[in-house]
Amino acid sequence: MSRGAFKSLPLAQVYQLLEPGPVVLLTTMRKGRANVMTMSWHTMMEFEPPLVGCVISDRDYTFETLRATKECVIAIPTVELAAQVVGCGNTSGRKLDKFARFGLMPLPASRVGAPLVAQCYANLECRVEDARLARRYCFFVLRVVKAWIRPRKRARTMHHMGRGRFMVAGRTIRLPSRMK
Amino acid sequence: MSRGAFKSLPLAQVYQLLEPGPVVLLTTMRKGRANVMTMSWHTMMEFEPPLVGCVISDRDYTFETLRATKECVIAIPTVELAAQVVGCGNTSGRKLDKFARFGLMPLPASRVGAPLVAQCYANLECRVEDARLARRYCFFVLRVVKAWIRPRKRARTMHHMGRGRFMVAGRTIRLPSRMK
Repeated sequence: MSRGAFKSLPLAQVYQLLEPGPVVLLTTMRKGRANVMTMSWHTMMEFEPPLVGCVISDRDYTFETLRATKECVIAIPTVELAAQVVGCGNTSGRKLDKFARFGLMPLPASRVGAPLVAQCYANLECRVEDARLARRYCFFVLRVVKAWIRPRKRARTMHHMGRGRFMVAGRTIRLPSRMK
Repeated sequence: MSRGAFKSLPLAQVYQLLEPGPVVLLTTMRKGRANVMTMSWHTMMEFEPPLVGCVISDRDYTFETLRATKECVIAIPTVELAAQVVGCGNTSGRKLDKFARFGLMPLPASRVGAPLVAQCYANLECRVEDARLARRYCFFVLRVVKAWIRPRKRARTMHHMGRGRFMVAGRTIRLPSRMK
């Protein structure tokens, strides 16, 4: 697999990926070592440039890495990757190479040092925009600087419901909404 | 309908409702007038007491009301309420009584002035905990002070995908996650 499997997604469409609330993977790179964690606490904050707010516990290895490098990739998995997603959530990158352990393939990003995840259907390259609430709430505002998507009809994202239960994305309906 | 249809939900379980990313309604009350808006940009920020971060545009009528009253209710609708959810998103409460217009029934909350929505399957009474990022990002940190749930087997929540498309919650799977 290479980055050629992905096409560039206009930044103005990024909100359509994150707004339904999927579980995501978040990758970082520090001193030549890539890491990946599982995350469910995120929200869109602005359409364009896309801003994403997210909570990363200060007990997670990623917290210090993100504060230091100010770069990460949000990768969106589908349910086919469920075992890997849960594996990344159950372990810490402090001592474990999670990419190797769970058979995830890192691909070079274009604008940040953190890697894309080849198996995910979308990858969002991000820089930390605002860390003012990081100390108090472990809350980071990220700016998406480049977005990649793997063209496919249906992306069955996973949505965490706590304690190992996940809702899998169901059918899509259309309604006469005037909301963006 | 009355509040008797709801049972009290332990605050420690609130994250299980919001983490999958459902579209929610947000009610406020100002000078004896109730209002309700539709919202998709929210994230859990803490388990207990439950903190919820959310973005409310400063073009929305609710923005000023929330800044002034510091109280609201997050009501979680299921897909049966899709028409009302979209209606509340397409209109402004500046001049319209949306509860009356869309046949939503307000019920008195126990800890805040904003009303519950009788037809929703869960209602979370909230107070503004932190508005430091309200000016810059329209971002509010809410603290859930009381939670109500209507006992039911399946709650088919709606998840916004942009421009009138909504994903409806699908099947639930269980995995050996050690994450809360």
